[in-house]
Amino acid sequence: MLLVLRLGHRKGRDPRLSTHVGLTARALGADGIIYSGEEDSGLLESIGKVAKKWGGPFKVEYVEKWERKLRVLKRKGFCIVHLTMYGLPVEKEISGIRACYRKCRKLVIVVGSEKVPREMYELADWNVSVTSQPHSEVAALAVFLHEFLQGKELDKKFTKSQVKITPQARGKRVERRP
Amino acid sequence: MLLVLRLGHRKGRDPRLSTHVGLTARALGADGIIYSGEEDSGLLESIGKVAKKWGGPFKVEYVEKWERKLRVLKRKGFCIVHLTMYGLPVEKEISGIRACYRKCRKLVIVVGSEKVPREMYELADWNVSVTSQPHSEVAALAVFLHEFLQGKELDKKFTKSQVKITPQARGKRVERRP
Repeated sequence: MLLVLRLGHRKGRDPRLSTHVGLTARALGADGIIYSGEEDSGLLESIGKVAKKWGGPFKVEYVEKWERKLRVLKRKGFCIVHLTMYGLPVEKEISGIRACYRKCRKLVIVVGSEKVPREMYELADWNVSVTSQPHSEVAALAVFLHEFLQGKELDKKFTKSQVKITPQARGKRVERRP
Repeated sequence: MLLVLRLGHRKGRDPRLSTHVGLTARALGADGIIYSGEEDSGLLESIGKVAKKWGGPFKVEYVEKWERKLRVLKRKGFCIVHLTMYGLPVEKEISGIRACYRKCRKLVIVVGSEKVPREMYELADWNVSVTSQPHSEVAALAVFLHEFLQGKELDKKFTKSQVKITPQARGKRVERRP
């Protein structure tokens, strides 16, 4: 079970970025996304619609209190990785994280938005950086998932999809299923 | 020379996403970003400010006519990779792209926004997908750069930075230079 937790969603300011976090989580191998911050039914719906059209399974959830949710997940045996530019380099930590996952099979990857509360750094089992440069939680999540799943995520199969792309050297080929 | 070209920027709708594309390009090893679409001096400035504070070199540019720019780059010997969910899998194409780059040392990676004109598919030397699933141009660019540079980008050095992070297991350590 591989989950992503997105902290501090702001309805007016982050709609597209939070959508990209959710779609990236889904496309690159996570089993679900949990949003926190401002409640936004439109965001949950739009991710749900993509998962319905392009295949699943993929869980979408909103929680008001992310600290409580993380403590519950921790009690259930989840390892917690927090992606932050201040953390230890992903390339040095990834094998330890994989080793932990092989035992518990439960991981939650946390990505923030602007300011992440100090408590998050304490709750995390790993604070991990994808470079120590400012860039994007979407990019950090993508590189982390790609490193963690070692490229196997690129070939993930999605069940019960209504559409399917056949890769082309030029142009588009999309198959729609009844 | 490794450039990123971002097509179809929309000033009202895409400010944060386009910023994330630029910062991801910089942090993960590109030498510069070219924006097309709606002209947006604030966007160029904000990327420029990050590059000044966190180190460079990193070029930021706006072009009105992206087709013309790509043709000029092509004449100068650049290989053109277009990231699109309809393209051939990155994991199968990456070694060919690397081989091409070893000869010409010039590559431009194109990412779109909503609809990419058919002409782009024709102009590209490679139309490449990071999964055939809908997700994010930021995530696609991040995974592509990480695959292309084989992880070396994670340790890239930036010159003349005013701030520098020292990675920590918990908390933040930022050094400011005079």
